[in-house]
Amino acid sequence: MTTLEKLSSNKAFGGELVKYKFKSAALGGLDARFNLFLPPNATNGKVPILYYLSGLTCTEDNGAQKGAFLGPASQEGIAILFPDTSPRGASIEGEEDDWDFGTGAGFYLNATNPKYAKHYNMLTHVTIEIPQVVEAAGLPIDSNRQSIFGHSMGGHGALTLYLNSVLSGQKQYRSASAFSPISNPTKCPWGEKAFKGYLQGGIEEAKDKYDATELIRKTNKEPLHVLVDYGTGDNFYQQGQLLPENFLKAARDAGYDEVQVRVRSQEGYDHSYYFISTFGADHIHFHANFLKA
Amino acid sequence: MTTLEKLSSNKAFGGELVKYKFKSAALGGLDARFNLFLPPNATNGKVPILYYLSGLTCTEDNGAQKGAFLGPASQEGIAILFPDTSPRGASIEGEEDDWDFGTGAGFYLNATNPKYAKHYNMLTHVTIEIPQVVEAAGLPIDSNRQSIFGHSMGGHGALTLYLNSVLSGQKQYRSASAFSPISNPTKCPWGEKAFKGYLQGGIEEAKDKYDATELIRKTNKEPLHVLVDYGTGDNFYQQGQLLPENFLKAARDAGYDEVQVRVRSQEGYDHSYYFISTFGADHIHFHANFLKA
Repeated sequence: MTTLEKLSSNKAFGGELVKYKFKSAALGGLDARFNLFLPPNATNGKVPILYYLSGLTCTEDNGAQKGAFLGPASQEGIAILFPDTSPRGASIEGEEDDWDFGTGAGFYLNATNPKYAKHYNMLTHVTIEIPQVVEAAGLPIDSNRQSIFGHSMGGHGALTLYLNSVLSGQKQYRSASAFSPISNPTKCPWGEKAFKGYLQGGIEEAKDKYDATELIRKTNKEPLHVLVDYGTGDNFYQQGQLLPENFLKAARDAGYDEVQVRVRSQEGYDHSYYFISTFGADHIHFHANFLKA
Repeated sequence: MTTLEKLSSNKAFGGELVKYKFKSAALGGLDARFNLFLPPNATNGKVPILYYLSGLTCTEDNGAQKGAFLGPASQEGIAILFPDTSPRGASIEGEEDDWDFGTGAGFYLNATNPKYAKHYNMLTHVTIEIPQVVEAAGLPIDSNRQSIFGHSMGGHGALTLYLNSVLSGQKQYRSASAFSPISNPTKCPWGEKAFKGYLQGGIEEAKDKYDATELIRKTNKEPLHVLVDYGTGDNFYQQGQLLPENFLKAARDAGYDEVQVRVRSQEGYDHSYYFISTFGADHIHFHANFLKA
């Protein structure tokens, strides 16, 4: 039986931001942390939930502290859950050497390379384990109303988790959005490095499971609700790590118009939380359309 | 001639957050940094400016990243300048030993103890030097429209700089506000330690110059515009470091009603930026009333 341990609590925007810890089976028995923002109306009953997946090097704190999400979520009456970005302390050789692989860089997949397969299962952690733990703890969350968003590596996570849940017919999430997502990771250095490391089948395995641009080709016109923002001043965009145009083209080729898949180019904005916070309220309100429908 | 060096720039809420560095005479020739948020309308002419003074251990970044000030400031068309909290790298013995004294803890005063007097002059740095440097650089700031706010040690700074500018007749700032300010520092451990360290005259010197509760007794009913928020769940409040009731009582004794000096007790909030960000927009709009009058 998994027990949630409350590490801290901060009142915010009339609601509460609580940090929890639990022993994660999906992450090989390591301690995992997440933050959960509960809006004021959560004291009166269950509320919809939005998952926020953070980017490379981040923890469960970055989005909660810098995203400017909590105010709009409080207004809309939506909870936000902020997972960590990888297992911590697996003691795998080389795990701490790079900022874009290993600790802080779990890429929201389930590793198949035996070296990482015991611990690096952020996909199961985020999609199955955390919802179960939240449910078992009796927290006031309506698990029939889930959506997901994220930044950079977490934007990749949000889009792929969403598209896979559409493809599987499970439809766990009602909508997905992303800031500066790694949109076509099998075609960029960050993704190539991650997939070659974590996956026994390398890039080919990733094409099938973990690439938003590849996945959207297969959705067969199933209805989608996707919003993406990226900044033209983003140096990672300029270096070809994000490739949102590839995702956009694949979406249009697959028959999605801009009502279903909206990709916005934001002039002059960069990769930082200053960009994210500028459009944070937009994303919360976007998801509220579906979470509260 | 002081030159401002631009270290970085981030687009935010249609405006720009720029980090600058310059050689600070007030801080004994050390490099000093600050962040300046310019709202979108600053491209068309000069805008009013609000100074934000941060708390113990902070830098010029905390308020910019976590305060949730930039969105409302963009809407109101107000610039925000975020100074650092102390000189950095003065190489004074013991300067790095404590989190509540020395580096990161300049207390917005001018030191008179010879050990610190060359470098620890955050009062001059914030009230005179930075405005001059900003003016000399030709930045689009209307220096006739300044207000000031801050958090904790920075709330102490905002209240004392404001009240001293009223007492001197200079009226540099149109309004002041504070989150969880150290309101009566000659009566609390943080203030006692700082004043005994930095000031040759110790607590007595501080009573005369650097204690908001003492200063408001002397204002002789000069019009004031002050807003203070503190949280009842703040452990530093509970420990008697903040003493906002003493400031409130002194204000009422001096004849100020709650239109002129408003002190709000916020149920359950703590000392963190989750508290500050909850009421950040309120404070920006409060200052806008006077900055745009």
